[in-house]
Amino acid sequence: MTEAAEDLQRSSSCEIDATDDLDGDRLREYCGVFGVFDLPDASAIAALGLHALQHRGQEAAGIVSFDGSRFHGERRLGLVGDHFSQENTIKRLPGATAIGHVRYATTGETMLRNVQPLFAELNTGGFAVAHNGNLTNAQTLRRELIREGAIFQSTSDTEVILHLVARSRRPLLIDRFIEALRSIEGAYSLVALTNKKLIGARDPLGIRPLVIGEFNGKYILASETCALDIIGARFVRDVMNGEIVIISEDGIQSLRPFPPQPMRPCIFEYIYFARPDSIVHGRPVYEVRKAMGAELARERLIEADVVVPVPDSGVPAALGYSQQSGVPFELGIIRNHYVGRTFIEPTQIARDFGVRMKHSANRCVVAGKRVILIDDSVVRGTTSVKIVQMMRDAGATEVHFLISSPPITNPDYYGIDTPQKENLLAATHTLDEMREYIGCDSLGFLSVDGIYRAMGYERRDPNRPQFTDHCFTGDYPTSLTDLVGENRAQLSLLAEAS
Amino acid sequence: MTEAAEDLQRSSSCEIDATDDLDGDRLREYCGVFGVFDLPDASAIAALGLHALQHRGQEAAGIVSFDGSRFHGERRLGLVGDHFSQENTIKRLPGATAIGHVRYATTGETMLRNVQPLFAELNTGGFAVAHNGNLTNAQTLRRELIREGAIFQSTSDTEVILHLVARSRRPLLIDRFIEALRSIEGAYSLVALTNKKLIGARDPLGIRPLVIGEFNGKYILASETCALDIIGARFVRDVMNGEIVIISEDGIQSLRPFPPQPMRPCIFEYIYFARPDSIVHGRPVYEVRKAMGAELARERLIEADVVVPVPDSGVPAALGYSQQSGVPFELGIIRNHYVGRTFIEPTQIARDFGVRMKHSANRCVVAGKRVILIDDSVVRGTTSVKIVQMMRDAGATEVHFLISSPPITNPDYYGIDTPQKENLLAATHTLDEMREYIGCDSLGFLSVDGIYRAMGYERRDPNRPQFTDHCFTGDYPTSLTDLVGENRAQLSLLAEAS
Amino acid sequence: MTEAAEDLQRSSSCEIDATDDLDGDRLREYCGVFGVFDLPDASAIAALGLHALQHRGQEAAGIVSFDGSRFHGERRLGLVGDHFSQENTIKRLPGATAIGHVRYATTGETMLRNVQPLFAELNTGGFAVAHNGNLTNAQTLRRELIREGAIFQSTSDTEVILHLVARSRRPLLIDRFIEALRSIEGAYSLVALTNKKLIGARDPLGIRPLVIGEFNGKYILASETCALDIIGARFVRDVMNGEIVIISEDGIQSLRPFPPQPMRPCIFEYIYFARPDSIVHGRPVYEVRKAMGAELARERLIEADVVVPVPDSGVPAALGYSQQSGVPFELGIIRNHYVGRTFIEPTQIARDFGVRMKHSANRCVVAGKRVILIDDSVVRGTTSVKIVQMMRDAGATEVHFLISSPPITNPDYYGIDTPQKENLLAATHTLDEMREYIGCDSLGFLSVDGIYRAMGYERRDPNRPQFTDHCFTGDYPTSLTDLVGENRAQLSLLAEAS
Amino acid sequence: MTEAAEDLQRSSSCEIDATDDLDGDRLREYCGVFGVFDLPDASAIAALGLHALQHRGQEAAGIVSFDGSRFHGERRLGLVGDHFSQENTIKRLPGATAIGHVRYATTGETMLRNVQPLFAELNTGGFAVAHNGNLTNAQTLRRELIREGAIFQSTSDTEVILHLVARSRRPLLIDRFIEALRSIEGAYSLVALTNKKLIGARDPLGIRPLVIGEFNGKYILASETCALDIIGARFVRDVMNGEIVIISEDGIQSLRPFPPQPMRPCIFEYIYFARPDSIVHGRPVYEVRKAMGAELARERLIEADVVVPVPDSGVPAALGYSQQSGVPFELGIIRNHYVGRTFIEPTQIARDFGVRMKHSANRCVVAGKRVILIDDSVVRGTTSVKIVQMMRDAGATEVHFLISSPPITNPDYYGIDTPQKENLLAATHTLDEMREYIGCDSLGFLSVDGIYRAMGYERRDPNRPQFTDHCFTGDYPTSLTDLVGENRAQLSLLAEAS
Repeated sequence: MTEAAEDLQRSSSCEIDATDDLDGDRLREYCGVFGVFDLPDASAIAALGLHALQHRGQEAAGIVSFDGSRFHGERRLGLVGDHFSQENTIKRLPGATAIGHVRYATTGETMLRNVQPLFAELNTGGFAVAHNGNLTNAQTLRRELIREGAIFQSTSDTEVILHLVARSRRPLLIDRFIEALRSIEGAYSLVALTNKKLIGARDPLGIRPLVIGEFNGKYILASETCALDIIGARFVRDVMNGEIVIISEDGIQSLRPFPPQPMRPCIFEYIYFARPDSIVHGRPVYEVRKAMGAELARERLIEADVVVPVPDSGVPAALGYSQQSGVPFELGIIRNHYVGRTFIEPTQIARDFGVRMKHSANRCVVAGKRVILIDDSVVRGTTSVKIVQMMRDAGATEVHFLISSPPITNPDYYGIDTPQKENLLAATHTLDEMREYIGCDSLGFLSVDGIYRAMGYERRDPNRPQFTDHCFTGDYPTSLTDLVGENRAQLSLLAEAS
Repeated sequence: MTEAAEDLQRSSSCEIDATDDLDGDRLREYCGVFGVFDLPDASAIAALGLHALQHRGQEAAGIVSFDGSRFHGERRLGLVGDHFSQENTIKRLPGATAIGHVRYATTGETMLRNVQPLFAELNTGGFAVAHNGNLTNAQTLRRELIREGAIFQSTSDTEVILHLVARSRRPLLIDRFIEALRSIEGAYSLVALTNKKLIGARDPLGIRPLVIGEFNGKYILASETCALDIIGARFVRDVMNGEIVIISEDGIQSLRPFPPQPMRPCIFEYIYFARPDSIVHGRPVYEVRKAMGAELARERLIEADVVVPVPDSGVPAALGYSQQSGVPFELGIIRNHYVGRTFIEPTQIARDFGVRMKHSANRCVVAGKRVILIDDSVVRGTTSVKIVQMMRDAGATEVHFLISSPPITNPDYYGIDTPQKENLLAATHTLDEMREYIGCDSLGFLSVDGIYRAMGYERRDPNRPQFTDHCFTGDYPTSLTDLVGENRAQLSLLAEAS
Repeated sequence: MTEAAEDLQRSSSCEIDATDDLDGDRLREYCGVFGVFDLPDASAIAALGLHALQHRGQEAAGIVSFDGSRFHGERRLGLVGDHFSQENTIKRLPGATAIGHVRYATTGETMLRNVQPLFAELNTGGFAVAHNGNLTNAQTLRRELIREGAIFQSTSDTEVILHLVARSRRPLLIDRFIEALRSIEGAYSLVALTNKKLIGARDPLGIRPLVIGEFNGKYILASETCALDIIGARFVRDVMNGEIVIISEDGIQSLRPFPPQPMRPCIFEYIYFARPDSIVHGRPVYEVRKAMGAELARERLIEADVVVPVPDSGVPAALGYSQQSGVPFELGIIRNHYVGRTFIEPTQIARDFGVRMKHSANRCVVAGKRVILIDDSVVRGTTSVKIVQMMRDAGATEVHFLISSPPITNPDYYGIDTPQKENLLAATHTLDEMREYIGCDSLGFLSVDGIYRAMGYERRDPNRPQFTDHCFTGDYPTSLTDLVGENRAQLSLLAEAS
Repeated sequence: MTEAAEDLQRSSSCEIDATDDLDGDRLREYCGVFGVFDLPDASAIAALGLHALQHRGQEAAGIVSFDGSRFHGERRLGLVGDHFSQENTIKRLPGATAIGHVRYATTGETMLRNVQPLFAELNTGGFAVAHNGNLTNAQTLRRELIREGAIFQSTSDTEVILHLVARSRRPLLIDRFIEALRSIEGAYSLVALTNKKLIGARDPLGIRPLVIGEFNGKYILASETCALDIIGARFVRDVMNGEIVIISEDGIQSLRPFPPQPMRPCIFEYIYFARPDSIVHGRPVYEVRKAMGAELARERLIEADVVVPVPDSGVPAALGYSQQSGVPFELGIIRNHYVGRTFIEPTQIARDFGVRMKHSANRCVVAGKRVILIDDSVVRGTTSVKIVQMMRDAGATEVHFLISSPPITNPDYYGIDTPQKENLLAATHTLDEMREYIGCDSLGFLSVDGIYRAMGYERRDPNRPQFTDHCFTGDYPTSLTDLVGENRAQLSLLAEAS
């Protein structure tokens, strides 16, 4: 069972070597998606939108555009700005309609072929799709499709959707697409493109976000509102759980092909993934994070001299904590912005210098002080050890380490790159063991109900949890088909890097 | 009809901008293939074999290897030596079995996805294939397959074979492969790789070459014998027309799944494509070309001072002409070897300097002399004009231009990149008009029967022509399905460069 | 006169195209220097030190090491981490002694030859030098040296020092070096390397910073203490104004070859250049900046809802303002960290989107609020316009723009890349005109005495100013030889990019 | 003494790893030069000229142009066509006057700073120089110049000339230049550029070639006539030994500042270096090489079936031998043209395959035949072993190896990259030992008098040899100052690769 679970996880995540910085122990979001319909220079707009979504996936990006008669695609390893800001690249993507994608992908395990959007020539015409999330029955479906003669060009779970659409016997593309969605399980926020339509779709629980924007009377789809802001587009509404929106020359149309269910979005979008200036389901992320910090101050008020955030994601919670507690907020850790694409192959000596390459203690703030250090989450705990030590080296007399979310005890299968359970610090250590491992004077986590309070609820509803929160609770919201049954037969894989 | 013909041709050729050199007006061979079974460092051996076949395709190369449990693939734009000579590349292709491919591919029209070998994960395991030739019913089959839900990842005709194999209901891979071959028409020399076997196959007429070699008791497949020589392998025999050879741990097995037909290989392998040191169907190419030159001297004996070859492909015919006629052979044109990968974007001034970038007249040989200039073929005639003018500028008193093959009047659909009929000089001009266009004092071509004589026959057998020679005769050896019927509907294509 | 002034400025600065971000209107520091003596892997240590000094110059970096018998040099355009983190680069720089440099340099105007450290083979042995600062009589000296037969390999003012040392008739290198320093005027913090010694030197006023550190009993020189922190070295003391320190196997030796003068360091190191975690002349930069913000709150207390820093350099002053005034500090502007080396050639559309590429408003903090926006300085004012507009677009009801330093009215000639006087907003506009141009509801600058108060003085001493502050006051601390006399004759220059 | 000789040689040559091809054992020419005065797009013309001279130096190229007010320079490692054919590069080199240079340079030992033309800002204005040849007192002069305070930017002997010119007290540039030439010894063909003039100069013996051409009434300087041909320029005359030509708006002026001496050009230009279509001192190189082959046939007539040239440099001599002897000329070795810039890091397996990467035997010509193999020279003999073995492997019954020049027994110090004496096969082996080492049935060299006969003389005049031929005779034409005296003190060198 564990083996199959590992398999599933491996297929749903590109394990990235933790670099020696504080971000090396973050959870990673899989992807961000963007779509634009009927606006001039659509691919340039998509590039800007993807740039604003870069925090959702930094290792590969792609755009497919449609110019009225032909589809054009570019997919690249690297940052959006590395490839899609140059005029000549955009020129290769003409047209007034485009979809785009950012994702994680490493050269070794994954390949350029996995970079999205994926594209297929169907007999109804071209069809491109970009996916944020992860399917939990992709391997099972893949095996069946191969048995029927399908040829997969990638190892991505998303390609399953493409084949299901291609093989459907329905005459209309949209019916084929719905048929495909009915076969898949897990989390998905999709944007798709045909030669007539831009389509958005969200899984029945609405695990991953997707919003609708408007610019000059034309529609845009994006993972987060920050991608609307960058181009000056207006936020219209969230795509709802289980909803399909079809944008065409006739405007926008909404379909609800699934039985109605309450929405259950992923709580981690609020804790870490979404950009602080995004608004997710009506809640400003920055305010939610400040509220988590304030809630933490209510649960864990500590007498200290300064509140120091772990940059950059701990800043809003630390401000919230400071404002609630009255302990002054100070920048006790300074981030070096000039890392660029550097230190890809750090020398041994650089490795030894650890977190100091990207961050350094601001000694004048820390020396001789009782420090409350605030971070948003602890995964493996490896960098927590370093950051606490950095505070001590800079002369802190006490270091209290507070986390603005509950302990992570279970891996994710819906598009977050979590380590296996045995590598999750909180899954294998008691609170006290964690405190000892990390080396802080005290360690505290926000409670599960505390996080629901920060979201505006009185508490978590155990019968109908308002959020997808299995990482804290083990309560997985969908079946995990690929983890059971006959799914361990390893396919002979083509390992390719090009 | 013409339109469909153009479509077919476009799909079967990457139109390459003629650079300003003498080779800009050559016909271009599509591809070369290579396979090796059960030898250590198989991919390094394949790289050497492909390097020796580089004259068959210089714009992209690929190798797929199998290490006993996994397949590994690398495909690159550029020369074999640019990518596959470096140790780290070869390290990514471990295993004792490998197939490889060289081909033409430009960034604009074609894409990395078209670079072969192609690979598919079948339910019987991995399957890789590399193809030299061109199918004449690929578009028709492709359309049917898409209708049934197949997703194509390339625009290559070769991928049709992959899908036919994937969709076959036969339990054994080899039966699926034979079923696929029975569906396709045109020219193909294939090497394919499974997790058990290396397979070679040649179309019923044997249009493109394929040979079997042996090294340390293990088998090798290659387009030409020169790829055996480079690694010191022994030539065993040609794969026969319509033959499938299966190389496995049990040795070599031969199947003949087609009704027997006389062989009819492409005459152009002898005239231009094959390397002079290769032996094709028992005939040394160098000797055949000298014989064409000698035959030309018999048909067109001209009183002159020197015989000058157009380098490098005109050299053997010029030597043959010289030895037969007694007119001295001299290097009247000097080739500049240091062009490298240069002048990709020639400045206007460089363009104006024309052929002098790559070739220059050797004035001391030409000045004041009556020159017989010998080339192997004339396609558009554009560089012929320049080379004749170069001789005149260098002081030649007379320039007689002799061609060691007949006039090209028809395009090819079997894997040679020929221009459309209206751009073939001999298809639109009389001999005299050609002479005038080229600007030479006299112009002569070897006759069709002359070329058969050089091959050792008395003459061409019009009922059962010994060679595929439609470029001279219009006598296409197979049906051209894609040129007729409903095939003009253009698929919406994804134009991609990555 | 203006023309000569422009010439001088041009020679002392590489005019960099302001990219469309907030940092496009910052002053730019010319350089940072680093030296290490007698520690294993000296060049790897230097690379780390330079990485910590990257904020002082981001366009080129260089290291020269000495291995006991030979000098080794590497100079590169780009970030330190782009070139000097890779093991193979460091391997090319063996030895236990090294000096390094970061600087601005553009391909067009400047060239790789200007990248430091500079090196010369003298008859006393090799001599390398790296310079932070700018000489004000370099052109005059250069002209004289050329007249005497010197050949310059760069357009850098630093090379003048090299030639002066080479031409000195003194037998001892250190005497030659002192002789050279006596000829030059302006600002310099130098680190130099011979085959025996590491030398540090600071101009008579101590305009640019230079500190001494210690690691494992060995000495280090660096522009700022943050470069000591990254490698865990201990801060020993500042090099004093007019001091030369000589580090050799015999330890450290101090020379004071100039007549004593009071120190007068550049005030801009505190306002903007130095990293907040550095300590300059005993003052923690972060605390000084908070004090400037607090002083600003004392001078300009405004009734408002939030204090919003312009990231990242406005953050400490905004915290100081908030803590002094009680107005809550909030992150009203979010920085996009994933710009990398991107958008080098921004498309027109990206240019139009202005500051939103790198920064976006955090609407939930700003909408409906009276905002105090805090920045550290205003140069041309171009991005101030954009950032104020960004606040208004996000719904701010009032925008008060406060600057934690005085108006810049005069260009610098000592190593800061300032625009010409006519492009300095405060040099050509009244306060009210500036307010109108920027579009804010109110505009305020910290007073000159206010900044001296933040530094711990009662006020500026007009007779003996404690700091180099001509940008605010016009009071240049040295003569500006190159601006007067016969210096306008333009040398024929070799413009080279390689 | 030997040590100093090695030093001198090292400084005059970049030892290039012999790659595994036939050319790996050739002598290498140091450089080629080109200059153009008062023609539009001068740098594009220079690029073409350098491209035609690429055989004289393939590892680096540079051009300096003057646009009437400024000098512009570009220097690059790699082929001319790799960098100087692209429009944007040429745009960086505006102006109607330009000089250029091709040379050998490796990244390790040599550096970009050594790539010519060298440039200096003198008080008379800019001065650029490009040099073909090698000085034999450069180290002695360099040491003196450093003692006087000169700073060298390269390790090139050519920079000595620059410093001598810079330091001369003469008011006129041309007098300074002559003064500099009077100080130097050895071989030099120079082209130099000032803001008024293009200058050509040749050493008193005329060891290296230099010719004057004319295009549209404007003058051109080039190492060989083939660089005139490529741009359609007319050959005017050779620059004479000891002559300086000054090209300006006033036309061409000739100076003869040295005492008259008979000319004594390097015999190796005829044997190997010059392109076959060049005319050197009135002798077509192709004809001279054929005459050497014919002379060889007279001296060594061997009964055999075929004459096979070692491509490509052995071809003219083999044709000459064939025409004189009546033994048929055949291409018994085929060259693979598609090596490009490849196999830079050949894998071990590729190394083992030896010469077959670039050349292969043409079995049909060789098998069962008595072969006369003709090459132009033998240096170390390493590839001769391989090529003879290749003939035997291809079935030759006898292999007679004939060389169209005498045995090389002494190293060169005038710009040819020869190995040290102990690595010259003929310096350490008798003829019979050589034959045994090479493994041929018989071995023969053309006699010294034979080569003079091929040049049109009755024999070598031992009192006044007509050519510089010390490689065969040990008779060095100038003093070798750097080999004697105090010159062994090693300077501390900066090893740099950038």
